[in-house]
Amino acid sequence: MSDKHLAIGSECPPLQEGVLRCYSMKYCPYAQRVRIIIAAKNVKHEIVNINLKSKPDWFFEKNPLGKVPALEKDGALMFESMVICDYLNEAYPEPPLYPADPWQKAHDRVFIELWSKVSSPMYKVYFAKGDQHVLAQCFDDIRDGLDMFEVELSKRGTCFFAGAKPGMLDYMIWPWVERLPMAQQMAGDDDALPEERYLKLLSWMTNMKEEPAVRATFMSPETHLKFLLSHISGSPEYDMEE
Amino acid sequence: MSDKHLAIGSECPPLQEGVLRCYSMKYCPYAQRVRIIIAAKNVKHEIVNINLKSKPDWFFEKNPLGKVPALEKDGALMFESMVICDYLNEAYPEPPLYPADPWQKAHDRVFIELWSKVSSPMYKVYFAKGDQHVLAQCFDDIRDGLDMFEVELSKRGTCFFAGAKPGMLDYMIWPWVERLPMAQQMAGDDDALPEERYLKLLSWMTNMKEEPAVRATFMSPETHLKFLLSHISGSPEYDMEE
Repeated sequence: MSDKHLAIGSECPPLQEGVLRCYSMKYCPYAQRVRIIIAAKNVKHEIVNINLKSKPDWFFEKNPLGKVPALEKDGALMFESMVICDYLNEAYPEPPLYPADPWQKAHDRVFIELWSKVSSPMYKVYFAKGDQHVLAQCFDDIRDGLDMFEVELSKRGTCFFAGAKPGMLDYMIWPWVERLPMAQQMAGDDDALPEERYLKLLSWMTNMKEEPAVRATFMSPETHLKFLLSHISGSPEYDMEE
Repeated sequence: MSDKHLAIGSECPPLQEGVLRCYSMKYCPYAQRVRIIIAAKNVKHEIVNINLKSKPDWFFEKNPLGKVPALEKDGALMFESMVICDYLNEAYPEPPLYPADPWQKAHDRVFIELWSKVSSPMYKVYFAKGDQHVLAQCFDDIRDGLDMFEVELSKRGTCFFAGAKPGMLDYMIWPWVERLPMAQQMAGDDDALPEERYLKLLSWMTNMKEEPAVRATFMSPETHLKFLLSHISGSPEYDMEE
């Protein structure tokens, strides 16, 4: 199956029995969450990329809100990245991605929610149009958000948030961490996130990049930036050369 | 323990060992979600109400974001209503509130997310200041949102979304359903949600009102309206007589 993003006028690729289908967009961080968990769980699957500026009619028929990521199984559709990732974790138990203890699991889920303290100001960076006042406020917020994760990782004293191997919390925040260097480039400030302030997170990033599930979906800051600039210009190049 | 909402200058009530503490605000629908699940699971607990306009310093020390609902156990804090309710469902397995099948469970969680299509325009009604154009748009959105739930309940063909007894989906949407009559009163249009359009949901509402976990937290539309008007005026009367 081609990885070209399907647009209005395309035909819906026929479903294969027993194959989980993931509707995605190559540069969407929420879709990347799902693709990482699919890789971590080694789930037999196929990816169907959707052109979000020109969604096919058949996509709306399946998925009235027209959202990606979405999962399709036997004609039934599921969406919301966290719901999908939690589903995959339950339907494919190995390796387990949450602590077995319910309180510890909930604690990880709280931190996944807290990640919006980093991801929300990142979006504002993209659309700040170089306004230095806005950018300064955004990076204040990003640094404050990252501080919580630096402190938490330090408290845990482990290589990954989940311990010796990454878990759901590690994977769920990764797509935005992968884009942090791009956010700094957008702001024209390579020192917006000082290394000495995030020593634990930097070492965590190095380790995460070696993880097979992360490598399966990784793209460079340059590639992310190239796509983002096309997106901001109003003509997102979903199928650009990386 | 008094149910008075604690404000700046108050002392933090001492924790009792082995008792789960729920920080709440009496009229907060998110906090009501948690109180409903505590009741459904019959969890030994205590409620500490927080004055959200004048939060005590000790509350911020425990809970830097200062949010309710929050759960405290042995000095550790958890927040986010869905994370807390899912935690309670796992830590206190009886009665189980999700389908055992992971796909069906995820399907219910998607519908819990979809509820924002109803709850978000409800907030806009409260702050529409009687603007008829805004109110008309809000109720269009609310009706569209409710339609999805009417269709889903009809498809399921059961008394509750979860079957013969309510489950997580039923309980998670309830706090806003309880406030729908108030939203109609705010709009001055008792027919904004025509009965004939929501026959399944109306019968579901009647059944939900009889459920002990719902009765444990139920307040009348008049009480909700009285609080809301005080809230809109800028002086929320957390401790008003019902």
